[in-house]
Amino acid sequence: MEKIVSLCKRRGFIYPSSEIYGGINGFWDYGPLGAELKRNVKELWWHTMTRQRDDVVGLEATIIMSPQIWKASGHVDTFSDPMIDCKTCKGRFRADQTGEIPCPQKPSKTVSECHGEKTAPRAFNLMFQTYVGPVQDASAVAYLRPETAQAIFAQFKNVLETSRQKVPFGIAQVGKAFRNEVTPRNYTFRSREFEQMELEFFIKPDEVVEAIAGRVATADETFGVPPSGGSEPAKAGTPNIPQSAIANPQSDWGWEAWHKYWVEQRIAFYEGIGLPRNTLVEYWQKPEELAHYARATVDILYKFPFSKRDEKGELTGEELEGIAARSDFDLSQHERFSGKPMGVFDEELRASWGKLSKEKQDELWRRYYENRKKYLVKAGVAGEQASKDATEDANSLAKGQYIPHVIEPSAGVDRLILALICNAYHEDQMPDEKGQLETRVVLQFHPRVAPIKVAVLPLLKNKPELVKKAQSVRDLLRPHLNVFYDDAGAIGRRYRRQDEAGTPFCVTIDFDTLGEKPEWKDTVTMRYRDDGKQERLAIGELLNWLLPKIR
Amino acid sequence: MEKIVSLCKRRGFIYPSSEIYGGINGFWDYGPLGAELKRNVKELWWHTMTRQRDDVVGLEATIIMSPQIWKASGHVDTFSDPMIDCKTCKGRFRADQTGEIPCPQKPSKTVSECHGEKTAPRAFNLMFQTYVGPVQDASAVAYLRPETAQAIFAQFKNVLETSRQKVPFGIAQVGKAFRNEVTPRNYTFRSREFEQMELEFFIKPDEVVEAIAGRVATADETFGVPPSGGSEPAKAGTPNIPQSAIANPQSDWGWEAWHKYWVEQRIAFYEGIGLPRNTLVEYWQKPEELAHYARATVDILYKFPFSKRDEKGELTGEELEGIAARSDFDLSQHERFSGKPMGVFDEELRASWGKLSKEKQDELWRRYYENRKKYLVKAGVAGEQASKDATEDANSLAKGQYIPHVIEPSAGVDRLILALICNAYHEDQMPDEKGQLETRVVLQFHPRVAPIKVAVLPLLKNKPELVKKAQSVRDLLRPHLNVFYDDAGAIGRRYRRQDEAGTPFCVTIDFDTLGEKPEWKDTVTMRYRDDGKQERLAIGELLNWLLPKIR
Repeated sequence: MEKIVSLCKRRGFIYPSSEIYGGINGFWDYGPLGAELKRNVKELWWHTMTRQRDDVVGLEATIIMSPQIWKASGHVDTFSDPMIDCKTCKGRFRADQTGEIPCPQKPSKTVSECHGEKTAPRAFNLMFQTYVGPVQDASAVAYLRPETAQAIFAQFKNVLETSRQKVPFGIAQVGKAFRNEVTPRNYTFRSREFEQMELEFFIKPDEVVEAIAGRVATADETFGVPPSGGSEPAKAGTPNIPQSAIANPQSDWGWEAWHKYWVEQRIAFYEGIGLPRNTLVEYWQKPEELAHYARATVDILYKFPFSKRDEKGELTGEELEGIAARSDFDLSQHERFSGKPMGVFDEELRASWGKLSKEKQDELWRRYYENRKKYLVKAGVAGEQASKDATEDANSLAKGQYIPHVIEPSAGVDRLILALICNAYHEDQMPDEKGQLETRVVLQFHPRVAPIKVAVLPLLKNKPELVKKAQSVRDLLRPHLNVFYDDAGAIGRRYRRQDEAGTPFCVTIDFDTLGEKPEWKDTVTMRYRDDGKQERLAIGELLNWLLPKIR
Repeated sequence: MEKIVSLCKRRGFIYPSSEIYGGINGFWDYGPLGAELKRNVKELWWHTMTRQRDDVVGLEATIIMSPQIWKASGHVDTFSDPMIDCKTCKGRFRADQTGEIPCPQKPSKTVSECHGEKTAPRAFNLMFQTYVGPVQDASAVAYLRPETAQAIFAQFKNVLETSRQKVPFGIAQVGKAFRNEVTPRNYTFRSREFEQMELEFFIKPDEVVEAIAGRVATADETFGVPPSGGSEPAKAGTPNIPQSAIANPQSDWGWEAWHKYWVEQRIAFYEGIGLPRNTLVEYWQKPEELAHYARATVDILYKFPFSKRDEKGELTGEELEGIAARSDFDLSQHERFSGKPMGVFDEELRASWGKLSKEKQDELWRRYYENRKKYLVKAGVAGEQASKDATEDANSLAKGQYIPHVIEPSAGVDRLILALICNAYHEDQMPDEKGQLETRVVLQFHPRVAPIKVAVLPLLKNKPELVKKAQSVRDLLRPHLNVFYDDAGAIGRRYRRQDEAGTPFCVTIDFDTLGEKPEWKDTVTMRYRDDGKQERLAIGELLNWLLPKIR
């Protein structure tokens, strides 16, 4: 890991924030190569998740929102770590880590061993707090968002009404989020300021699917996994399914099929940007691990060098993304807290409902009622009121109304960048200019995410014909892909620099390009990053040769 | 303006943040179309400013940085508005606006007229403040950045050392910034959370240019403007120069030529994304308007509908971008506050210096010394120490060392989005399906920035052959540009919806496409947004026809 951190600094991928002032713990900046890498990843996510689909649209909401949003989401009340204060040294520590943290005054002892008098644990909220407006009082308190998801829920009705989408559909957002982590760690993996790529995909409740389509397809039958014992919501260790098996969405899909669909889509995304399947783990949270509102959550883990090893010595992996089936919890909370209806009207449901048998209507009504009541009781609504509200909710089915459920694939950009760098990092042996083997550092990025796609290199700097020709090749390619022009130093050293930058292709303009060998006039040397092999290509074909490789 | 605000909400460009909770003053979200529009603009800026150039690289720094950065930049001490408190109503008001703001208790009177007892004006800092880490004390105070620029200065040396750039070169950044404006206003124009696109372009001081190139070209000779009376730094009303006249950077350019170059580049950018030259104003700040560190600042204004009118009744415009020649103020401040050297070593300067006459050396030394001393005195360094430090600085020229100067083109994304929407908004008369003229709302975006590039529309929804063919056209185009597929409603109404979304091209698949007229088999109707005209195009040619128009 030290080598990776050192390369990231040396080549301008990642710097400590505010480094000239001694840094600021938990904050990291992306240098020129890191900024390009990050842009490429975010752009690919956006492209894949929104522009390539009919059923997802984008949103770009603010970081500071009404504090009511964080009351509704539960963050104000429960997004906290337990902390204790030491009355002797005045330090503040995570209550669950006092056995590991050395005492600031007697570092030979841990905080739990030292003699300082400690307070009882108190909840320390992880949201950064500030004040909006000129007066700093309770009414002006606001928070930096700890996740991008809540803005999507808060704007759900606006988007629904202005975008010509119908459930099932999704809203995607990329943006910064902030958590005042007590112990930022593992380089950029757990930072206090980070970026998320989140999709909230709104679906019909299973009862509505069944009313319209007559049945609810299970994930198992849809994705070809053998049934594993009925309605058990979360299964550990479900085997991976190849990308080609990702089924097309069907009208009889319930939450299980949609959830599994998004798990498959997201794994395919990671494979598509160069993380091999065997570096990823598809981890199905066990029932006791699930958040209270979640019906199932799959974590996609990447096996980082700093991940712990299991009993077999295998890396266990750290979370890149969580894909949660969150039921109708989020929209329901915002409906309750804002007083604004979050339900949708579905003409198909209204029409189908009337055609159902009384028996079927009663069955679906009952199931919907039970789910609503379960939510309301969890949300603290008193028993009788909960029954009354749930009855009203279930009655609205006949009118074609319901509150959508949601599947949430939520990914961390910075962790993904770190995974891509860790995965790309290789050292190998390559002959130098004199044919001697030397150790080479190379970042084997997938060309889709590589910060620089192609380097254009005149063989010599002091030959104006070579420079002019090289610049014309640069100008030919530049409107279409990110080109780096470099004319300084020996060609072998320039290749090595591009290897460290992860540039998949180097184009060299030499005397043959100018016609020294007439049969090679207007051809260039194409040099491959991964094996160092070279071949000649015509300048006129370069663009069409390169474009399919980087897209 | 009301019509524009209403369209933005209705079509999903812009929503009030947290609207279901009553909103939060000064914060705005971008809906599906707004998010795409904004992405396109930011992407074009990034592409133009970094990827299309050899001499600019990118950076992506954090929003929360060391608070020392804001001490060095002056924001902690001076980035404030004067405020008064009313002891009667407990309100807080901008001291310079009490004559306009109505008293909250007696709205018929202004705050300055009412009888409430007021405090003396006090400075109210516009930076949002928070605490980093578990303890909320003075040592944990941090700020949300009020501009993206300072991160670039703080990381200048890291970027210089890792990117193979030499002065002159630039560092570009796009990102959120925050100002706790007392009175957010004019829709999204003055928001509390906003996004910036900033370039810091580092150049040699004029003395260094002269030592190396033997002379310093003036902006006037370079850009062909008649000399206007010597070294007067800021000129009001310099006439516009056509884009084609933008000169290529030369080694004898001093700050004036570089400044003028960036003004021209930036105006060309705005013209290139669809803001006509006559909607823009190139405003040269008068000497008395300049910030203390600025040698010249040009504001590029757009004539918004809410802009004030001058005595001739012309709209005066509001700032989209400021292009400031900031001397070496910023890097010098960070050098003083961090204790880390910000100077660069320039081999060419070292070599050239030795070849200068003693007389020339003395002259350049003196000029550099005077500039450094002027800075140091302004920065509060006592007289004798300032002379000593300036002497040391000037002595370093002979060793090839200097602190770069900077030209800063700094643009606001949200104001630009608003300008593009205002500029695109038109109402005209267009015949409806029955040939009756009706009023149409159309957003005439340049295709480069339009959120949707092309809509693909099967003539009828209930003809599977039409739908299938239309989907194949959608799938053909979608990997390359943002496509919207719509099969619901009458074709005329679908065109109107795309007009309001600003989609420049609509492609309709009809029975002729399927071969009803054999000579038109596999052609589509291409319908133009701006004049409603239609023509037939072959499906096989569509992509090559569209791509050059949207790039």
